[in-house]
Amino acid sequence: MNIRIPLLAIGLALLNSIGATAQNDSIIIKNLFDEVLKNGKCYDDLTYLTTKIGGRLSGSPEAAQAVAWGKKVMEAIHPDTVYLQEMKVPHWVRGAKETAEVFRAVGNSRRRNEMKICALGGSIATPDSGISAEVVEVHSWDELKALGKEGIQGKIVFYNRPMDVTKVHTFEAYGGAVDQRGGGASEAAKYGAVGSICRSMAINNDDFPHTGAMHYKDSITKIPSCAICTNDANLLSDYLKGDKHLKFHFKMSCQTLPDETSYNVVGEIKGTEHPEEIIVFGGHLDSWETGKGAHDDGAGVVQTMEVLRLFKALNIKPKRTIRAVLFMNEENGLRGGKKYAELAKKNNEHHIAAMETDAGGFVPRGISCEMKQEQFDKLLKWKPLLEPYGVNEFTMGGGGADISPLKEMGIPQMELLVDSQRYFDVHHAVTDVIENVNIRELKLGAGSMAAFIYLFSQYGL
Amino acid sequence: MNIRIPLLAIGLALLNSIGATAQNDSIIIKNLFDEVLKNGKCYDDLTYLTTKIGGRLSGSPEAAQAVAWGKKVMEAIHPDTVYLQEMKVPHWVRGAKETAEVFRAVGNSRRRNEMKICALGGSIATPDSGISAEVVEVHSWDELKALGKEGIQGKIVFYNRPMDVTKVHTFEAYGGAVDQRGGGASEAAKYGAVGSICRSMAINNDDFPHTGAMHYKDSITKIPSCAICTNDANLLSDYLKGDKHLKFHFKMSCQTLPDETSYNVVGEIKGTEHPEEIIVFGGHLDSWETGKGAHDDGAGVVQTMEVLRLFKALNIKPKRTIRAVLFMNEENGLRGGKKYAELAKKNNEHHIAAMETDAGGFVPRGISCEMKQEQFDKLLKWKPLLEPYGVNEFTMGGGGADISPLKEMGIPQMELLVDSQRYFDVHHAVTDVIENVNIRELKLGAGSMAAFIYLFSQYGL
Repeated sequence: MNIRIPLLAIGLALLNSIGATAQNDSIIIKNLFDEVLKNGKCYDDLTYLTTKIGGRLSGSPEAAQAVAWGKKVMEAIHPDTVYLQEMKVPHWVRGAKETAEVFRAVGNSRRRNEMKICALGGSIATPDSGISAEVVEVHSWDELKALGKEGIQGKIVFYNRPMDVTKVHTFEAYGGAVDQRGGGASEAAKYGAVGSICRSMAINNDDFPHTGAMHYKDSITKIPSCAICTNDANLLSDYLKGDKHLKFHFKMSCQTLPDETSYNVVGEIKGTEHPEEIIVFGGHLDSWETGKGAHDDGAGVVQTMEVLRLFKALNIKPKRTIRAVLFMNEENGLRGGKKYAELAKKNNEHHIAAMETDAGGFVPRGISCEMKQEQFDKLLKWKPLLEPYGVNEFTMGGGGADISPLKEMGIPQMELLVDSQRYFDVHHAVTDVIENVNIRELKLGAGSMAAFIYLFSQYGL
Repeated sequence: MNIRIPLLAIGLALLNSIGATAQNDSIIIKNLFDEVLKNGKCYDDLTYLTTKIGGRLSGSPEAAQAVAWGKKVMEAIHPDTVYLQEMKVPHWVRGAKETAEVFRAVGNSRRRNEMKICALGGSIATPDSGISAEVVEVHSWDELKALGKEGIQGKIVFYNRPMDVTKVHTFEAYGGAVDQRGGGASEAAKYGAVGSICRSMAINNDDFPHTGAMHYKDSITKIPSCAICTNDANLLSDYLKGDKHLKFHFKMSCQTLPDETSYNVVGEIKGTEHPEEIIVFGGHLDSWETGKGAHDDGAGVVQTMEVLRLFKALNIKPKRTIRAVLFMNEENGLRGGKKYAELAKKNNEHHIAAMETDAGGFVPRGISCEMKQEQFDKLLKWKPLLEPYGVNEFTMGGGGADISPLKEMGIPQMELLVDSQRYFDVHHAVTDVIENVNIRELKLGAGSMAAFIYLFSQYGL
């Protein structure tokens, strides 16, 4: 294909109507993007985090290494302060390799098929010999309820409602399916199920299971709960059509150990004019251990640190305090986010904005906000400054999980919106590795975060 | 991260101001996207094209297979007509494996380093024994000119101006570097160079050379011209700093055979109200043979056919004629595009719009246009219909190469704008394979093409 008129020129032309300040801002934002694209360290940082440390679930030795590494990298950037926020975190371990197999009748013969599963985070183990039972497939809570004790007692419930491929924004598809993963075990146990299987939260069919958190309800018997890869979920559904009395046998040795001590890593640059006004932004340091946590949320972690680095490299002195946080335990507890909010409240801190990057290191497309309309209107005026970088979707939606505990203090919530098409190919799975992160997409996300944080630090919100 | 308010709902709400027709259009467009995301065939088609046929440079047996395959796939969709447009195309062949090595002094010893090259398309071969000469590195035409005959005679000119990583739209970076590839050999030969090396058109550093077309100027001695992978280009530059008399030795056995007969593949659905008004759209069937032509432009080919399939699947009867074209020979001659325009003129056809998809099967972001302002204003009114699908960059830029010969007939030119961050990781290289195409991104591109073509067919332009 051929070449086009530079879009940046168009973007700059649009700014003529905004005036000299905006022109100055547009130059600073251009400098931020140029610097990250030329000299950004985030991809190298992510390579280290994912290949030298690896998957890092809360409480694990790897999570502890990640804390030490994050602190060291932050310190090397030389912000005004770097410190840790201590907390207790859950410590769930997967244990030995999980296995599953299906025994089914085909005509007069019996077949055995292995299936790929992984324990959902927080699940109890099966007995050493595993659990073997008939399977009942459901797609909704209504179906489950209709089956009742009679249809479920002593069986394994198989939740097989797929993510809706017609959702252009894949997080919507996730939102329409993830209830099965989080709550499926306890709902099934209410009717006497002995185990539960959840179709992986993958929008395309693949051959590896995707893990993620599940939660037991108090006073309901705990039953083991696993994810099955989407291709096997399709197969199991087919097998059930041929033999509704097939037996599913699975073994898992996961367990929850006593809580461990862990930390948020915090680095900040004090504001020159309003140091008491704080803009907090971050990603989460912990990750599932099925993959290496490259997109979820190593990307957010290294972008967060890159923002500090860019401010220092360009010698930008923010008028308000900017605070970068690498949160601990987003995946299975949110203890880091909660601890952060608890300390902010206790210390009577005045936060004016909170922004998260936890949707993967994909190409940035905009910003999602949860704030007052007048704040959103202010933010919208900055759209021409970001549009030259493809960041043009400014929407009222929501912020991220780690900053959500700040919501009750009335702090505006934001999240970097990135392209979501590939996220659920890697989410919580073996494919969440550096090889699936594009260096330019990651850097553009960091540049976008820096641009937003710059504008908030300059003008408030 | 957590879940957001459906953007589609916002998009639909915006449409309230446009009225009932637009609401109907928004439903049809939603149906197009739903159908392609649920049942689209383009990814399966692309898998076949890239794995069963493979790279398919004009004049090759693979290009002939691709024509037969394209016609067959089109016919199975049952548009009103499917036909071929015959033409002569260049037939350049790469020949045996290309090799290169550097001999250099390090202190008192000699070193030999192999380097990865590929012939640029259209280059002549080296002698059987190769060419061995000193190397002179340049970054601009001015540098070349300043060196003159004295500095260049008998040497190999090494063009090493990198693509500018700070360009957010990578095609701009390409535009700022590709002149070295296209014209470098003849410019160097003017000063007596015996060969030319061009740094690969890759925006990131990698280990494989990227080919592409080069052109000899008449009446200037033809010299062999190759691309070197970016990592080796950096190395060669370093080596030259250590030994400016190093010798570069390379062998290539490429040649240009007599022209072959080949074809554009055309399929069309006649308009119900204005059959004489034609909307043409397409991608190109030929590709470089270093890779499998998955993004460039297998993606455009399968998206083009998917548009026809979507119209048939949803029983949409266009008011104006829609014509899908798989162009031949975009890469090294544009004979297909030229033949198409020649026939359109000869047959007194009335084209009202031409649109191309040739920027890779990445996530769609907008549309690039070259047309009258009033036409662009009309197009802009449709933006709210496309925004829910992330297609929100409507820019005045240019169309694609294959439709460019229609420009002199005053036909509006358009191209699907897709995200460009990953394109130059695969462009004309061994990495341009199906594994690097995301199924949802490809399908969303096809849906976007279909939506635009639907609007043009309904309302003209």
